[in-house]
Amino acid sequence: MADIQPRNDRHDMAEKTEKMKARLPRGFVDRSAEDIRAVEKMMAKIREVYELYGFEPGDQPLIEYTDALGKFLPDQDRPNEGVFSFRDDDEQWLSLRYDLTAPMARYVAENFERLPKPYRIYHSGWVFRNEKPGPGRFRQFMQFDADTVGTPGVAADAEMAMMMADVMEALGISRGDYVIRVNNRKVLDGVLEAIGLGGEENAGRRLTVLRAIDKLDKFGSEGVRLLLGPGRWDGGKEGEGDFTKGAGLDAPAIAKVLAYVETGEIEANEGVEELAQIRALCAAAGYAEDRIKIDPSVVRGLEYYTGPVFEAELLAEIPNDEGKVVRFGSVGGGGRYDGLVSRFRGEPVPATGFSIGVSRLMTALKNLGKLDTSDVIAPVVVLVMDKDTESLGRYQKIVADLRAEKIRAEMYLGGSGMKAQMKYADRRGSPIAIIQGGDERAKGEVQIKDLIEGARLAQGIAGHDEYRESRPGQITVPEADLVAEVKKILEAQKADRERVR
Amino acid sequence: MADIQPRNDRHDMAEKTEKMKARLPRGFVDRSAEDIRAVEKMMAKIREVYELYGFEPGDQPLIEYTDALGKFLPDQDRPNEGVFSFRDDDEQWLSLRYDLTAPMARYVAENFERLPKPYRIYHSGWVFRNEKPGPGRFRQFMQFDADTVGTPGVAADAEMAMMMADVMEALGISRGDYVIRVNNRKVLDGVLEAIGLGGEENAGRRLTVLRAIDKLDKFGSEGVRLLLGPGRWDGGKEGEGDFTKGAGLDAPAIAKVLAYVETGEIEANEGVEELAQIRALCAAAGYAEDRIKIDPSVVRGLEYYTGPVFEAELLAEIPNDEGKVVRFGSVGGGGRYDGLVSRFRGEPVPATGFSIGVSRLMTALKNLGKLDTSDVIAPVVVLVMDKDTESLGRYQKIVADLRAEKIRAEMYLGGSGMKAQMKYADRRGSPIAIIQGGDERAKGEVQIKDLIEGARLAQGIAGHDEYRESRPGQITVPEADLVAEVKKILEAQKADRERVR
Repeated sequence: MADIQPRNDRHDMAEKTEKMKARLPRGFVDRSAEDIRAVEKMMAKIREVYELYGFEPGDQPLIEYTDALGKFLPDQDRPNEGVFSFRDDDEQWLSLRYDLTAPMARYVAENFERLPKPYRIYHSGWVFRNEKPGPGRFRQFMQFDADTVGTPGVAADAEMAMMMADVMEALGISRGDYVIRVNNRKVLDGVLEAIGLGGEENAGRRLTVLRAIDKLDKFGSEGVRLLLGPGRWDGGKEGEGDFTKGAGLDAPAIAKVLAYVETGEIEANEGVEELAQIRALCAAAGYAEDRIKIDPSVVRGLEYYTGPVFEAELLAEIPNDEGKVVRFGSVGGGGRYDGLVSRFRGEPVPATGFSIGVSRLMTALKNLGKLDTSDVIAPVVVLVMDKDTESLGRYQKIVADLRAEKIRAEMYLGGSGMKAQMKYADRRGSPIAIIQGGDERAKGEVQIKDLIEGARLAQGIAGHDEYRESRPGQITVPEADLVAEVKKILEAQKADRERVR
Repeated sequence: MADIQPRNDRHDMAEKTEKMKARLPRGFVDRSAEDIRAVEKMMAKIREVYELYGFEPGDQPLIEYTDALGKFLPDQDRPNEGVFSFRDDDEQWLSLRYDLTAPMARYVAENFERLPKPYRIYHSGWVFRNEKPGPGRFRQFMQFDADTVGTPGVAADAEMAMMMADVMEALGISRGDYVIRVNNRKVLDGVLEAIGLGGEENAGRRLTVLRAIDKLDKFGSEGVRLLLGPGRWDGGKEGEGDFTKGAGLDAPAIAKVLAYVETGEIEANEGVEELAQIRALCAAAGYAEDRIKIDPSVVRGLEYYTGPVFEAELLAEIPNDEGKVVRFGSVGGGGRYDGLVSRFRGEPVPATGFSIGVSRLMTALKNLGKLDTSDVIAPVVVLVMDKDTESLGRYQKIVADLRAEKIRAEMYLGGSGMKAQMKYADRRGSPIAIIQGGDERAKGEVQIKDLIEGARLAQGIAGHDEYRESRPGQITVPEADLVAEVKKILEAQKADRERVR
């Protein structure tokens, strides 16, 4: 709440009399406390792996000059094509970043002389897409990237693949439940040249072909065949759903592309050689093909990749939004992009990196039961039985004493009676409620309710664990013993939780 | 790097031949690794206090409907007055949030029925101001807020003040080096009414008076006297610097305001009563006036406050940007805002909260020496002496073995010779370099350089600690002993650091 840069801030409430509708713009979401905690936990684990690999944190602002992002130069008619853009006071166009790579490239280029090279850097943060939102497709989402800038060697690419594998295992994903798939754009370029799609003039069609290949997982070879040829109807049959225009290749060209994608059949070239080297480096470091696998169908949809490309795929089968059990698929990817930093430098600055889709990965981990946040204990609630300042001071003191012992605690701050207060404690999931009315006060005592044991007793659960003696649902103790008794109950509850696990 | 939402992403490099300038828009900054780490550490400590008080994390998107932010409705002539705004496809105006309170109010209003009430929530994140940047004034900065929504009682305000005090101490700021100053807008309103500035028609002038009072710290009573009257020249004398128009009060009115601000002289009213209650609650919980202090000069510059207001001030004297030693001043503040959530609900939803200016607080903590990040150890660097794939595989294996033991490590990924590699390790601040050339390889050995001891020996430092035996700058060990020996050296270095502290 509030502000350290106060000028000009006015919520013009006085001028509004009608009730305003509270609503979120399309494609944006509020995150729940549980999701925030889960993401924090997950990101801490990813960060640990990146640090272990010698990467250092970096952070760029969310706004950059539109041209520095290297995307569409907005014109006044359509300033918002894919990115959120706006004009600065000096008439220059600014945009919200749409990934973390373009701002990182700007930063590294700007500070090139003083950075150690090669430079290992990691970033996390929100990125924005000004696009039509859909299920699982948001206009603001979080990425967590790692990049190595200033080295052309495939050892850097191999390391990216190994790091992705280590990230998966650090997150508790078992070996066999994920795979890092690796390919090389140079290999694909060879195939594309062989079917006559070489040269600058075919850049657009090449991208269409790459994106068709990228859909192998989703649509199978028949779908890709259509996307390489005339095009494909979303519904599977003519006239059903939206139509995606194809690359317009002829039958022999389609056959060549599919033969490569499905069997990896290709003449030796520089790209094939690089893939062999990556495989050798990974094997030497102990990463076998069950973790990092050369796979000719990996493409990545971005045009700027110039060499090895990789994708982290979850093989585990997880119920999707419609309850259907499916392979979860890609949770991140990346590749070598030797042109992005060079744009600013006028000299070659080769680089490689990858990006994890944080929200998507979190969804997967939650479904896999790998994101347990049950170690977060709700606060002890001190009930307010008397509302005079002196009594409030007493309750406040109890709360302060508990907090001093690092026990999460709060005094009930609403205006309601005891029943509503107990309901509040229940909604909060509180482990314990503390009560001191006039009678207890007179005797220098305080009542402690074990809400978890209380719920169990109320439900008549004799004990799902026969060796476990049930505790009393509530006790009355001298004021001086309060903190110690609360601690005892919290420890007993913890032991219960561990016994059940 | 890369992307899980690939459509339409093209860095149009091919079309650009000229070198592009890498530059940041005005008012935005890149953060250094050290600053990022320091902020993480600081925020973890703040979060711990908020959690201890029973607050739960919340998170809203960075973009909201402009009208939901309750600020300026942008018109097409000046869409960017104070906030960054842009039009959505459906012609509705969107804005980047300029604080965390307005989006939180929208969220709580939207989800009111299902939230426990009172609702304790905390938020951190970037906020944006489309204003002229200046020294220490940025267009993107981070806030860390806590709010309690749904309670009119001053117990909630008192708790905010106590929590701010606890945050200061959790960050290592000694008692006596900070104070939480508390006032009440209702008291100020009494003063303003007494000088004839009551009523809706005087809202603008009231705000001018409040902002004048807010400057007492900065300009002293003489400066405030000018701001309450005709106005003030920034340079101190007529014609020097910019002119700030004053509130235009007459002499008796100015005298009344100053008397209140300097001595707290005021007739009893509801506001005074509330302040007494806050003082009593804080005292009962053990927070004396050296930590939480009623201070009539506290105002806060936002119009939306309706009751108690507070400010966290650092009393420690710290060198400012010009090297002058000054009181650091405010690092956060807040107050009661009973109207913000109500706007959406059409029913009273009282609330109180406060905000910490993260970057500003970090600057203060760094200057106070309270943000030590020296426990972050740079990676061990494995030098590349031979570049064939087999040798690279061996080096990669060494790195993997170190990482498996949780030792930060990396293989040198550049193309340079040994001297440049040692320089790289030096720039990285690496504790250890590992070398294996052909000779060592033949003998199954590996060389370990202790770079910290090496630097000490090179500088002829016999030992600043006479009881400490110096270690050798480098040793050669069998390959099998490598990880154990590296661990030993890292531990010895750690012991050295602890001895120096």
